[in-house]
Amino acid sequence: MFRDLSDFHAWWAERTRANDYRVTRTPLESMPGWALEPGTENIVHDSGRFFSVCGLEIRTDHREVASWSQPIIVQPEIGILGILVKMIDGRPHCLLQAKMEPGNVNLLQLSPTVQATRSNYTRVHRGSAVPYLDHFVAPRGGRVVFDALQSEQGSWFLGKRNRNMIVEVTGEVPVRDDYCWLDLEQIAVLLKEPNLVNMDTRTVLSGMPFLLSPDGRAPRHEESPGRAFHTHGELLSWLSEMKSRYVLTRRTVPLAQLAQWKRTGGEIVHEESRYFSIVGVDVRATNREVAQWSQPMLKPAGRGLIGFLGRTIDGVFHVLVRAKTEAGTHDVLELAPTVSCNAANYACLSPELRPRYLDDLERAAATRALVDVVHSEEGGRFLHAENRYLVVDAGEDFGLDVPDDFRWMTVDQLTALLRYGNHVDVAARCLLSCLAAVPTAVAVG
Amino acid sequence: MFRDLSDFHAWWAERTRANDYRVTRTPLESMPGWALEPGTENIVHDSGRFFSVCGLEIRTDHREVASWSQPIIVQPEIGILGILVKMIDGRPHCLLQAKMEPGNVNLLQLSPTVQATRSNYTRVHRGSAVPYLDHFVAPRGGRVVFDALQSEQGSWFLGKRNRNMIVEVTGEVPVRDDYCWLDLEQIAVLLKEPNLVNMDTRTVLSGMPFLLSPDGRAPRHEESPGRAFHTHGELLSWLSEMKSRYVLTRRTVPLAQLAQWKRTGGEIVHEESRYFSIVGVDVRATNREVAQWSQPMLKPAGRGLIGFLGRTIDGVFHVLVRAKTEAGTHDVLELAPTVSCNAANYACLSPELRPRYLDDLERAAATRALVDVVHSEEGGRFLHAENRYLVVDAGEDFGLDVPDDFRWMTVDQLTALLRYGNHVDVAARCLLSCLAAVPTAVAVG
Repeated sequence: MFRDLSDFHAWWAERTRANDYRVTRTPLESMPGWALEPGTENIVHDSGRFFSVCGLEIRTDHREVASWSQPIIVQPEIGILGILVKMIDGRPHCLLQAKMEPGNVNLLQLSPTVQATRSNYTRVHRGSAVPYLDHFVAPRGGRVVFDALQSEQGSWFLGKRNRNMIVEVTGEVPVRDDYCWLDLEQIAVLLKEPNLVNMDTRTVLSGMPFLLSPDGRAPRHEESPGRAFHTHGELLSWLSEMKSRYVLTRRTVPLAQLAQWKRTGGEIVHEESRYFSIVGVDVRATNREVAQWSQPMLKPAGRGLIGFLGRTIDGVFHVLVRAKTEAGTHDVLELAPTVSCNAANYACLSPELRPRYLDDLERAAATRALVDVVHSEEGGRFLHAENRYLVVDAGEDFGLDVPDDFRWMTVDQLTALLRYGNHVDVAARCLLSCLAAVPTAVAVG
Repeated sequence: MFRDLSDFHAWWAERTRANDYRVTRTPLESMPGWALEPGTENIVHDSGRFFSVCGLEIRTDHREVASWSQPIIVQPEIGILGILVKMIDGRPHCLLQAKMEPGNVNLLQLSPTVQATRSNYTRVHRGSAVPYLDHFVAPRGGRVVFDALQSEQGSWFLGKRNRNMIVEVTGEVPVRDDYCWLDLEQIAVLLKEPNLVNMDTRTVLSGMPFLLSPDGRAPRHEESPGRAFHTHGELLSWLSEMKSRYVLTRRTVPLAQLAQWKRTGGEIVHEESRYFSIVGVDVRATNREVAQWSQPMLKPAGRGLIGFLGRTIDGVFHVLVRAKTEAGTHDVLELAPTVSCNAANYACLSPELRPRYLDDLERAAATRALVDVVHSEEGGRFLHAENRYLVVDAGEDFGLDVPDDFRWMTVDQLTALLRYGNHVDVAARCLLSCLAAVPTAVAVG
């Protein structure tokens, strides 16, 4: 526990000093433990586990182009992202961890209590046991506050999902090195600092509203349905309509067969240097399960933008949610922010292919941003993947008519949907966590 | 509208006389419009649409055997099953249809207002337009009461789902030949007659509780969560646990490559005549979109049993729900009845492979059956596929401890989950519809 955040920052500086990490780039061809599979040139681990990088052919009638091919990360196992919660001095506190991930620009970020792939916690890597894991696997002692299988980046992962869990305990919990208790108000402040609260923490935090509903019922929207622009049933109907209207089909292909991607200089790059590249890294650390390893990582071509355009409707703050299809989406589409894009990818496209509402978002951000902060995506798979997270209030003059791919929803409606898993994408979930730190939005949402 | 059900039965007899149907078996090799694809011997339509029959290899750690292969129906398009509802004399009435399906033992059954594949309603068959379809596609006039993408038989279909819709209208609706208004009490009585209310009607009816919740909120379980054995949150957590614990992988293979299945006598049969066969039929009808067609159908080896074991817990009736994995399950597993099996498939297996709770179900059925009726599965794909539908009250002496694959749920809890789609399987949904006709179960559930 920290009396105030200056104590936290002192502890954080100390944790940074206490550990030594070095991340260096290495050619994909020379990563111990990893191989380019003969024939396909897919990047696979010698154990056949962890994850692999292969090619994917995508066809859909719900994107700017009808078909494309790309490298994609395949990680079929479901890992656990878990936050332990305890009431201390009458306020809920979360046990978070100072954890190095090789892809973080600053290496160390605040991660959940447990952040473990199945390979991790079944000890494929032969490292040390995952601390606090026993609180998240049955028979666990605490109360499960939130537990849903959630998707991760659909552009970069093929159908990957992790189990997002929040478990509340009452007993004594020993606090190990690199771990600390933070209350929700402190976390809300830290969420405004760039690149500090990592993606895994942010996605799990999106389930925190259910901490306040001890009988397991959905949050407030059930009690005041009349205040939302659409009923919950109308939103579900729209989702059914969208999923049956559009088609997403794909098949994995050898990485070596992707026409627009080539392996050169020890990396896999797009012919126009767009989207992302696949690179190798060597990692040396003193406080991870294993002290040294190599791995492939996905490095985005530039900083992205993830944003909700919002406005108040009849006194309730709503965000404009998009039904979005990506290469690796589990089931045709998920609920996404109004805009989620890498501006660099659109720079050379014609104006009509520029993402819808991007201009509105950037314009409103200049004067009425509720959230405006740069965060990192998962540093275990993505190298220096930063996004600007924005929630803006576009004002009540902003038109309510939107294209069929979009719907106005309250924060509580979106939160009610995310507990069912694979409904709300990782970008939208991370924005919800950031938005929880904005008192006015939560109060009226 | 019928003053009483004798009027309905007179109308029904008249509809049966008014139309003439003939269904005859024909070899798979001689169905006009269908071909055995060279090389694979998969059964495909000349248009490339409707559906196909191919082979599937399945691997899972959540069934009696670790892997198997079988023929399976592939129908990726999402069709519409829709029931139109209107308040007449203060009571909700459903517009149902006397519809012939070639697989029905009695040919004519009561089907939803609209029962249309995407091929149907986009006119691939070049037949007449689908009546009442405009009420179910945007912009529709009425209020959408229920709208979810629901799975169908996972043992026979690869990931197939249909859009289950209930739409309430207030305006005048002309009633065409073969259609009639029935109120919910009349339907409840008709659900107790064998092979009358077809599968598509039964699955849509499972969403009818949402008719009584005009603001789109979930049914009563939200209001009395303390009365259920598990909270809603606990059930969602259990689902996440089960889905991350088990693995289901599969790949389509040529029908010609299935080791235990062979094409003989114009059919595809299992080497021990178990499970099902794939057969061809010729159909002649006077009141369908097209007057004559041929098609492959799946013919089960015998009558199946689908049943919920139930008991009262603290004054509330609960059913024992199973998390079940089948060949074609969309996402690892769905919530299924306590028992769903074809007894013939288990006859030659050792006793320990006999389905769990089958004996308990059959024993309780002898004295305390709330539901006990034979219904047909979808007559458009399945030939003479009958199941005995059972809901039994096993009594309060029946133990509450159950294996990890099973959970006690109230009827309202199961109903609350089914609106999210792909949570509750078709067998469980059909049982819920039948159970709605049992006043005591509904009153306390």
